[in-house]
Amino acid sequence: ATIAVMASRQLSETKLRRRSMSTSYRLPPLPWFGMDIGGTLTKLVYFEPSLDNAEEEREKVAHIRKYLTSNVAYGTTGLRDVHLEMPNVSFLGRSGTLHFIRFPTCSMSIFIDMAKDKNLKDLADMICATGGGAYKFESDFQSRLGMSLLKLDELECLLNGLIFLAERHPLECYYLPEPDPSRSDCLRQPYSLTRQSDCYPFLAVNIGSGVSIIAVRGPRDWNRVSGTSLGGGTFLGLCCLLTGCETFEDAIALAERGDSNKVDKLVMDIYGGDYELFGLRGDLVASSFGHMMSVDKRAEAKPEDLARATLVMLTNNIGSIARMCASTQGIDRVIFTGNFLRCNELSVRLLAHAMDYWSRGSIKALFVQHEGYLGALGSLMELVDPDSINNAYFTSESAQTASDDSQKMSSRKE
Amino acid sequence: ATIAVMASRQLSETKLRRRSMSTSYRLPPLPWFGMDIGGTLTKLVYFEPSLDNAEEEREKVAHIRKYLTSNVAYGTTGLRDVHLEMPNVSFLGRSGTLHFIRFPTCSMSIFIDMAKDKNLKDLADMICATGGGAYKFESDFQSRLGMSLLKLDELECLLNGLIFLAERHPLECYYLPEPDPSRSDCLRQPYSLTRQSDCYPFLAVNIGSGVSIIAVRGPRDWNRVSGTSLGGGTFLGLCCLLTGCETFEDAIALAERGDSNKVDKLVMDIYGGDYELFGLRGDLVASSFGHMMSVDKRAEAKPEDLARATLVMLTNNIGSIARMCASTQGIDRVIFTGNFLRCNELSVRLLAHAMDYWSRGSIKALFVQHEGYLGALGSLMELVDPDSINNAYFTSESAQTASDDSQKMSSRKE
Repeated sequence: ATIAVMASRQLSETKLRRRSMSTSYRLPPLPWFGMDIGGTLTKLVYFEPSLDNAEEEREKVAHIRKYLTSNVAYGTTGLRDVHLEMPNVSFLGRSGTLHFIRFPTCSMSIFIDMAKDKNLKDLADMICATGGGAYKFESDFQSRLGMSLLKLDELECLLNGLIFLAERHPLECYYLPEPDPSRSDCLRQPYSLTRQSDCYPFLAVNIGSGVSIIAVRGPRDWNRVSGTSLGGGTFLGLCCLLTGCETFEDAIALAERGDSNKVDKLVMDIYGGDYELFGLRGDLVASSFGHMMSVDKRAEAKPEDLARATLVMLTNNIGSIARMCASTQGIDRVIFTGNFLRCNELSVRLLAHAMDYWSRGSIKALFVQHEGYLGALGSLMELVDPDSINNAYFTSESAQTASDDSQKMSSRKE
Repeated sequence: ATIAVMASRQLSETKLRRRSMSTSYRLPPLPWFGMDIGGTLTKLVYFEPSLDNAEEEREKVAHIRKYLTSNVAYGTTGLRDVHLEMPNVSFLGRSGTLHFIRFPTCSMSIFIDMAKDKNLKDLADMICATGGGAYKFESDFQSRLGMSLLKLDELECLLNGLIFLAERHPLECYYLPEPDPSRSDCLRQPYSLTRQSDCYPFLAVNIGSGVSIIAVRGPRDWNRVSGTSLGGGTFLGLCCLLTGCETFEDAIALAERGDSNKVDKLVMDIYGGDYELFGLRGDLVASSFGHMMSVDKRAEAKPEDLARATLVMLTNNIGSIARMCASTQGIDRVIFTGNFLRCNELSVRLLAHAMDYWSRGSIKALFVQHEGYLGALGSLMELVDPDSINNAYFTSESAQTASDDSQKMSSRKE
């Protein structure tokens, strides 16, 4: 249902956009990629244009298109998130499908080998890339592949990707009207967030390996207000150490069936009940992992309890810092993004509940379907940026048109 | 030198106070205790009055005095912090010595047995107690010992104890003029913090099992503005799990010789250098424990590296939350207290450096010598509170005098 609603809306937008496009606009060469090379995961957004038969016959990049779209796994570590695929999206005046692919950043060398193997260099000189890896791996791309990286700021890409998706996908953004950490069937309600709506200001909290917090007041009016090193990388790193698990998925699966009260010291463990003077309920965590200084309690704690306690500790800490930032900034909507929230319903529920409970209902927690791909998508959108690519893809008479058009899709500087 | 300076100052105060004391003032029965029963440790402050020979002969509580002052260890888990002892302190018009004793709260049952064994019940009906345990263990004290607990709020006691000490001990409060996390010989500079000086406002950040943050604007004008469950209990709990250590002292000793860069992912590990756009230096932690998702990095990380990373993660998180609170509250002095900082020079340096670095020198971190005993001391001071003990210890004509006198020593409600 999600995809169907989106598709019909996108089709009409596509038609509109095609009519308004300047015919003198010179498109960047295929294939169209956007990359976000993070501390843990590299995210790749690939735009697969719809082709007619004549085009398909001429197509120089068929081998890349077929490799990416006919597989869901690449090598031993690359994966395509098929459930996030977006067909019938209009992009640069063309209709096509957005594909979402990820692999661990530690496999970057394998990715470069694959790109060499597929002769990517013969098709394009440059890849739009964001995240720290755009800087760290720039020389590797140059020396081993002969390709440049168009390095883009990760937070700007994140925000551009967010608005692009929110405007095209009515179910992209959602919230939990009745958040309850203990119920796995919490209702998700769509939330309209488009530049046309009254979407500003909001706080964006991106939970990747670490956490960045951005106050967004308008399309080009944002700043990084805070951050913490206690993020998704901390969750996975600690879970690997504490439980012997090897992957994020395993850590989440453990956490889902664990009991953090076997690990954490609650207010009632210290007070015998509530700490009434400050309205601190007995079932609140007073000291994360506080029981684990006891030999007996350690013997009782199972790996799943430790994973759950790790997840609860980090999620609540991020929620608490986000709430402080929102309240300092006078902002009442907080959008949580980043791959820490991928397949992690429990953290979504905990964040939604914590924001609601501690702000007494005054701050709303929002989430997005493509949580980890916003930066990669935002970097793909820079393909049309006339400034950053020195007008290479635009004839002089169409530069203004292209720039106007890009304004509709991204929130980049003019 | 510390003790000597304090002692001479206290002696003259004692004389002054004795002259001004009402002779009709009825003192509470000896022994004088204040207790702070926390989530991990119970702190006990014992006032040993100076006695002349005649008094000593009559003394009913000699066995308790001798037991406490002639030992430095009690049972298998109780310890006296001899280096914190304060002689020649004036209290309730008497001169004496303050002794500082602690034991794990999980040994409370042994403490109650000992108190029964020493016939504490025959000497006093009530013990002044604060911390969550004052509530949790109230019925145990009543049923097993026949004694009541005068339950006092832990944050109010903490603040009263802090001001009491700061006013009597010129070296109680200190700061690091040139904080450097990598140098173990950082200079400590005394900081004058007395109610007579311009000490308000300040932020008190108490790091026990968990963390409470209190904005203090005047003697009786304070509120708990924030807190986090990631505190000292989290440090010890995680260290026990990750390194196999058993005690706080062992965990600190490990942390002191470890290298957290083997465990944490730094900005330079992701960016290859600095994240220039936001002025994030390459050597800052981007993701605490972020390296530990890698099998190879896990194999390289030693227990001391894991202990160090745990300490750095928790200390920096507390520093960051404290700085946000200070800046939200418009306060530029932050006093860190609580037993997490006991024998923990590294966290003191990290906090001092973090506050200075992230606030660009605008917020000062302060520390105290008796970091873990402020609450217990504050509860001892309530011995003279006419309200909370229903005037039991005061003759009607002297109540006002006692109240005035107590005002000088504590910052309690009138």
